[in-house]
Amino acid sequence: MNKPVLGILGGVGPLATALLMRMIIEKTPARTDQEHIPMIVFNDPQIPDRTAHILDRTQPDPLPEMAKVARWLQNAGADYIAIACNTAHFYYDGIAAAVSIPVLNIMEETVREVCDVSHGGASDIRRVGLMATEGTVASGVFEAYFAERGVEVVAPGRADQRLLNELIYGRVKANEPYDVNDLLFVARRLRGRGCDAVVVGCTELSVIHHDVPVNERSSWLHDSLDILAGRCVDVARRGTLLRTVQ
Amino acid sequence: MNKPVLGILGGVGPLATALLMRMIIEKTPARTDQEHIPMIVFNDPQIPDRTAHILDRTQPDPLPEMAKVARWLQNAGADYIAIACNTAHFYYDGIAAAVSIPVLNIMEETVREVCDVSHGGASDIRRVGLMATEGTVASGVFEAYFAERGVEVVAPGRADQRLLNELIYGRVKANEPYDVNDLLFVARRLRGRGCDAVVVGCTELSVIHHDVPVNERSSWLHDSLDILAGRCVDVARRGTLLRTVQ
Repeated sequence: MNKPVLGILGGVGPLATALLMRMIIEKTPARTDQEHIPMIVFNDPQIPDRTAHILDRTQPDPLPEMAKVARWLQNAGADYIAIACNTAHFYYDGIAAAVSIPVLNIMEETVREVCDVSHGGASDIRRVGLMATEGTVASGVFEAYFAERGVEVVAPGRADQRLLNELIYGRVKANEPYDVNDLLFVARRLRGRGCDAVVVGCTELSVIHHDVPVNERSSWLHDSLDILAGRCVDVARRGTLLRTVQ
Repeated sequence: MNKPVLGILGGVGPLATALLMRMIIEKTPARTDQEHIPMIVFNDPQIPDRTAHILDRTQPDPLPEMAKVARWLQNAGADYIAIACNTAHFYYDGIAAAVSIPVLNIMEETVREVCDVSHGGASDIRRVGLMATEGTVASGVFEAYFAERGVEVVAPGRADQRLLNELIYGRVKANEPYDVNDLLFVARRLRGRGCDAVVVGCTELSVIHHDVPVNERSSWLHDSLDILAGRCVDVARRGTLLRTVQ
């Protein structure tokens, strides 16, 4: 293989994993099958729920199984790894320590995109709304990355968070139909609370957001899975990984 | 793992591979990440174009690389294999011989579905229209499977086949936008030529067909990738593979 092989730690959740693949393929400047990025994907249903463990440490710890899949991907020939789940990044250090190949960090990449790329410098961005699982919100990891840039993170109110929980667990993960307007409703409410940008910070919410036609998407609404997909393509094109945050 | 692990021989093409994953996930009776089917996917861009080799045997032979990926999937832990490409099934025997685990056959499954399941017996079906690559049409493999059931296969006229070639190679594989009506136009023309059923027999065409809302799909139009996805789920639920054709 002359191109670096991407390993995807998947199944967290499964639909988000398939969408990450699709986003990467659509962003690749390829006109034939042969010009695409080599990818190894392991959709592992045995990884325990991340939010359940973050909120209640007596629940099964997902880190050992995620570290196992990361090692499996490395042994299978992956040159770098992406993880199709924001909440899993609470365990990022443990996963990265399990392998000797680089692991992309969806939260770092999202913070970089929001602060540097899209708005030309963090000084333009003061408040960012976060649409994510309760686990991601409670873990404070996104908050810590944004805090390094002097950016405040705003979480949805209790009723709006319940709506997001329902979209993530009651709809996308449960294979049930959803209404994209529910996601956009919460996004606009955050925007209305003075947020300069809002992050789609859960890959199940990315599955919903992807249904919004590209030309109808809001420039202030940043999709973490879409940003991760773009980064996967950058790495494949350059053949190198550069740390961009911290 | 208590559930059988599905290995997907992918990258042929890449978007079709991601769609196969999505179809499998959507068909799985799961309400949480943990209830889904374990999947290992290798999206290998090094597999040469199948149609190019079928039409001109001086072109690179894709079988050695496909056999390599099949062996890789078996060694990686797959219990059964699915291939996200109809044209690749010209090489089915060679791929199946490379491994000791079962390899699902998208053409066999499609013929079974069209003749037995959807229409209650082959006697109802006399003529089937085939929308596929020139390689699949020229190889005559679908024709041979249908002939065993006494069913005649009708290929599109020259201009319609050119339109399908453009959709497959000039649009989906080239990451270019397409018009779903082009696909439906060719399907209706085949139907108008007295076909009792029409098969979407190329996984790139399945990518286009998938954009048709489920409640607007024609009952006489059978999607081979959708049928393969259903079979993958059946195997995972039953834990066994049954040969259904031949």
